[in-house]
Amino acid sequence: MAKRNPVVLVMGSDSDLPKLASTLDTLGEFGIGCDVRVLSAHRTPEDVREFATGLPEAGVRVVIAAAGGAAHLAGVLASLTTLPVIGIPIETSVLKGLDSLLATVQMPAGVPVATVAIGSAGATNAALLTVQILALSDATLTDKLTDYRNKMIEKVREKDRKVRSRK
Amino acid sequence: MAKRNPVVLVMGSDSDLPKLASTLDTLGEFGIGCDVRVLSAHRTPEDVREFATGLPEAGVRVVIAAAGGAAHLAGVLASLTTLPVIGIPIETSVLKGLDSLLATVQMPAGVPVATVAIGSAGATNAALLTVQILALSDATLTDKLTDYRNKMIEKVREKDRKVRSRK
Amino acid sequence: MAKRNPVVLVMGSDSDLPKLASTLDTLGEFGIGCDVRVLSAHRTPEDVREFATGLPEAGVRVVIAAAGGAAHLAGVLASLTTLPVIGIPIETSVLKGLDSLLATVQMPAGVPVATVAIGSAGATNAALLTVQILALSDATLTDKLTDYRNKMIEKVREKDRKVRSRK
Amino acid sequence: MAKRNPVVLVMGSDSDLPKLASTLDTLGEFGIGCDVRVLSAHRTPEDVREFATGLPEAGVRVVIAAAGGAAHLAGVLASLTTLPVIGIPIETSVLKGLDSLLATVQMPAGVPVATVAIGSAGATNAALLTVQILALSDATLTDKLTDYRNKMIEKVREKDRKVRSRK
Amino acid sequence: MAKRNPVVLVMGSDSDLPKLASTLDTLGEFGIGCDVRVLSAHRTPEDVREFATGLPEAGVRVVIAAAGGAAHLAGVLASLTTLPVIGIPIETSVLKGLDSLLATVQMPAGVPVATVAIGSAGATNAALLTVQILALSDATLTDKLTDYRNKMIEKVREKDRKVRSRK
Amino acid sequence: MAKRNPVVLVMGSDSDLPKLASTLDTLGEFGIGCDVRVLSAHRTPEDVREFATGLPEAGVRVVIAAAGGAAHLAGVLASLTTLPVIGIPIETSVLKGLDSLLATVQMPAGVPVATVAIGSAGATNAALLTVQILALSDATLTDKLTDYRNKMIEKVREKDRKVRSRK
Amino acid sequence: MAKRNPVVLVMGSDSDLPKLASTLDTLGEFGIGCDVRVLSAHRTPEDVREFATGLPEAGVRVVIAAAGGAAHLAGVLASLTTLPVIGIPIETSVLKGLDSLLATVQMPAGVPVATVAIGSAGATNAALLTVQILALSDATLTDKLTDYRNKMIEKVREKDRKVRSRK
Amino acid sequence: MAKRNPVVLVMGSDSDLPKLASTLDTLGEFGIGCDVRVLSAHRTPEDVREFATGLPEAGVRVVIAAAGGAAHLAGVLASLTTLPVIGIPIETSVLKGLDSLLATVQMPAGVPVATVAIGSAGATNAALLTVQILALSDATLTDKLTDYRNKMIEKVREKDRKVRSRK
Repeated sequence: MAKRNPVVLVMGSDSDLPKLASTLDTLGEFGIGCDVRVLSAHRTPEDVREFATGLPEAGVRVVIAAAGGAAHLAGVLASLTTLPVIGIPIETSVLKGLDSLLATVQMPAGVPVATVAIGSAGATNAALLTVQILALSDATLTDKLTDYRNKMIEKVREKDRKVRSRK
Repeated sequence: MAKRNPVVLVMGSDSDLPKLASTLDTLGEFGIGCDVRVLSAHRTPEDVREFATGLPEAGVRVVIAAAGGAAHLAGVLASLTTLPVIGIPIETSVLKGLDSLLATVQMPAGVPVATVAIGSAGATNAALLTVQILALSDATLTDKLTDYRNKMIEKVREKDRKVRSRK
Repeated sequence: MAKRNPVVLVMGSDSDLPKLASTLDTLGEFGIGCDVRVLSAHRTPEDVREFATGLPEAGVRVVIAAAGGAAHLAGVLASLTTLPVIGIPIETSVLKGLDSLLATVQMPAGVPVATVAIGSAGATNAALLTVQILALSDATLTDKLTDYRNKMIEKVREKDRKVRSRK
Repeated sequence: MAKRNPVVLVMGSDSDLPKLASTLDTLGEFGIGCDVRVLSAHRTPEDVREFATGLPEAGVRVVIAAAGGAAHLAGVLASLTTLPVIGIPIETSVLKGLDSLLATVQMPAGVPVATVAIGSAGATNAALLTVQILALSDATLTDKLTDYRNKMIEKVREKDRKVRSRK
Repeated sequence: MAKRNPVVLVMGSDSDLPKLASTLDTLGEFGIGCDVRVLSAHRTPEDVREFATGLPEAGVRVVIAAAGGAAHLAGVLASLTTLPVIGIPIETSVLKGLDSLLATVQMPAGVPVATVAIGSAGATNAALLTVQILALSDATLTDKLTDYRNKMIEKVREKDRKVRSRK
Repeated sequence: MAKRNPVVLVMGSDSDLPKLASTLDTLGEFGIGCDVRVLSAHRTPEDVREFATGLPEAGVRVVIAAAGGAAHLAGVLASLTTLPVIGIPIETSVLKGLDSLLATVQMPAGVPVATVAIGSAGATNAALLTVQILALSDATLTDKLTDYRNKMIEKVREKDRKVRSRK
Repeated sequence: MAKRNPVVLVMGSDSDLPKLASTLDTLGEFGIGCDVRVLSAHRTPEDVREFATGLPEAGVRVVIAAAGGAAHLAGVLASLTTLPVIGIPIETSVLKGLDSLLATVQMPAGVPVATVAIGSAGATNAALLTVQILALSDATLTDKLTDYRNKMIEKVREKDRKVRSRK
Repeated sequence: MAKRNPVVLVMGSDSDLPKLASTLDTLGEFGIGCDVRVLSAHRTPEDVREFATGLPEAGVRVVIAAAGGAAHLAGVLASLTTLPVIGIPIETSVLKGLDSLLATVQMPAGVPVATVAIGSAGATNAALLTVQILALSDATLTDKLTDYRNKMIEKVREKDRKVRSRK
């Protein structure tokens, strides 16, 4: 029987996949499986709808959506499910992601999107926010988050030592 | 038999109706019937979908959509129909409509939204753009557009005379 | 024994309380208890720290933080806990909340803040996002979310009927 | 006798032609002929005027205008014709096209410009919006639009399959 | 015989006249006559053209144009005359004049508009810039500019004294 | 005896000289001499003051100032002379010249700066605006401006022909 | 003999005085005398220069400058003294203080302005930053700063208690 | 015994060190020792706290903090010490440092951050502002600041001579 993953990462184009590698890598560090889908709010609205309505049955618990420009993907998914939807605004060449950010975060009352930072920091943080949410019902994830933080602290301290001992 | 209107004006909330009065008034000046619907891309996505897929059958030719903030309404409608969709970005209190504008206009290649100005100028111009589109297959509308322009010219000239003759 | 609430709403000043009434009201609709705290990332950093480190023991599961300007409150809390932190950017008179939004959402990789819309829409949505997160381990909340959505749909439809039947 | 094309694409400089290739390619996919003109609202205002007033006689039905910076070309054309005018804001090096967008879209009541996205997405969408408008009086174009959408859907689905089957 | 004024102030609507009172008042302080015209780049393009081409014959030396939104008036006039054209960006309710400023100042190489500040400071300064230009061939105006500056200095000094002597 | 040039181009650093080559070239096309100075509003305020107060004696008629960031150079010069001061906002790497533009154009009532476009278009237009101003008392310059415009028109028409005849 | 104050608050107009009351009040709380001057970088440049060059002799140690729009006051003062200059960007009606902020903070290398927040928060903080600077050579001020912080903490805690005990 | 430096430069990552070389170089020109630390407001909040509370004991007099994005480092340090804290907003790829600037400068009343320009100009100016502050209790630094200014003036004059004598 196919493994059911608790997280799905949805993007509008496979060209965004490299920008979202850290989302998958970070989830992987926590041992969380993640399906990846290419779905477009504007080009394949019916597929988006079918996907969103099938989420509970598929055992999905958190949806991550990444889009740029008039970035509707996260909002459209959020309108079709009551699962938490995390939005990653993709950086655009023209307006540097300001359009993506505003189109993702400025949702009307009733349909939230949990928005993270534009670009690569957001890609990692969407994964970490997912882990934080799943950790509420899985204590081993809380421990792993603490480990992750500790490693992060150690890395900063290592850089600090390096900088302090430079000539 | 019910009169079939060639235009529908869709808005996310009836509280936007006063801001869109000039859309209806202007279409009325040209004798063009317009249905008004309250539909929300985020709150009633299924109704939006049903509405959009029924448009050809209903004899609708142009769709006007007004929304604010993460303004997805026009884009969602555009993804569900091949009719021309005109987007009016509603002014918001927080970012003064910059969010509405970017979320409406920055559509990806493949699904256009014909975007007009933020706020009241856009409300009137959505109607006029509709008339211009319908005039391509209705010469009487072209004549009316010329009349409308001439009246507009006369109004500016009247103001010009008034200002020039002031003491 | 004191009731332990799963959610805490933190704000920088009690003057923000009226802007956040909908956060409390919405959580209340779902029967979710919420403590309210006034803590300032800049004025009472030690209290913020003590508060954040005591969260797990206090049985808190989700933290909501609202701040304006150089809005660091959500980010500081997120740096001190592995619980999910939701940030509400408060509208400011000078830059209309753009400063609050950027200071809340643009977190570096490693420490996410789940950011919602600027101002009142965000206040409601922070509550709904909280419910969505808690619903992952409480099926009755999922049912309530579905009810909430259905009521929201019914309200939009009621407005739609009203607008369609106007003369 | 010379073939009369129903669409004209006007640009301020021939250096913009490569950026607008997708406008011509997309119209070509639909079998729609398009003249290309280099005209400048600021450098050749008389030529613009002569061009605009001759449009009806030339059998033109839709005008597409692309300009950057204080992008007046679409607005000036719109002031001189009652045909639908579509504006493409060209990306600028300095303000990334925000100036082009605002100068194109913020038209006063009375003279609409149907504005599409900044840059390359807008270049494609100006063509598609044109097709949507022409399709109102040409059912074969509606069929082609449906085909175009279906191909677009198939492309997204192909990417989806590719991503889902990656190792 | 009619008095020929060396300056014309052009605005898109007579509703802008109160905002431009300081332009006329300041020119009046210097004894410089100024005609006022209501002309719209978008609504009365032919009148704008006729006006602009008649400027040399009318003895006009400097043109001041005030407009808001997609503010093309100054740019269109500048494209039709080689006289200096000064642009005043009118404050708009939606984007606070940022649109007016960018549409006025970001002119392409070849057709300059001398742009002053958004709103009331710009209204006064358009007049002063005009006087500075005319003073190049009228030494009495240079003296008056020096007087104007001296009065301005005296006013600031008076305020300074008032503030320093307050209790 | 030294030739006295009617125009001075002032810049904050000689590294801006290449960006301002078109200012000098364009003035040269009109046979107008131009001194070039490197002066910094912030680094050499006394030199700026000495320079500005000596302008009338030196026979200078128009001052062009180019600066970036908190671009005070044009404003400081304008505060020290009653000659027309033209400001060129230099593009900055960080905020793309938006800071330069606002710091140059938003002058208070009493001290105007004639601001042109950010970057290279502005560099050319500062020269042309200078010519337009000087032409008010030199009819040969008016003829040259007409020639310049005609050549510009011919260039656009040449591009138009090239584009129209492409296969 | 006249008391010599270690701080001067300079503003462009006495109309800004009410907005800067908290600067004076806060300095007063610390027992620090402050002169107030109305000086304009653009209207009274000579007075600004005379003022700045006389600062050391007058025993001034910190200069606070408040200005709006193309806010050059702080930068001009900083160019004329090696004393620390603190800049308060005044909120403007048009661009909400974004212009004031950028014109104050974006100083070139060599001439710093210590910039604080736009508007009223900045007015208080300019005073506190002054106290922090003066405290480096006056230990009693350090104690007072600690007291000030403690009172601030107590105020936040009082609000916290109030909010927690509300029904 | 270890040398105690009066200045500490704190940055969120050692990757920012090259961007901050001019801070260290400039302090070095004035003979002022500066420790460098890598500390992250979000990743190592406890280390930041320990660092900040130990500052007085360590003899530190001025803290310089450089951060990008939701740049909280300077603000967090300012909340934990009464020493002057200077904030350098680091340029970001996405929003070009506008986010860093707003998150650094828009501090609430009570906790100032002395903010300098985005990027490299700010890096140099943070050092110079530090020197200006320290010079208040060290007259030799005032002399060195005068020397520094004089050298700066000489460099500008050298460029001026070079430009004036070019052919």
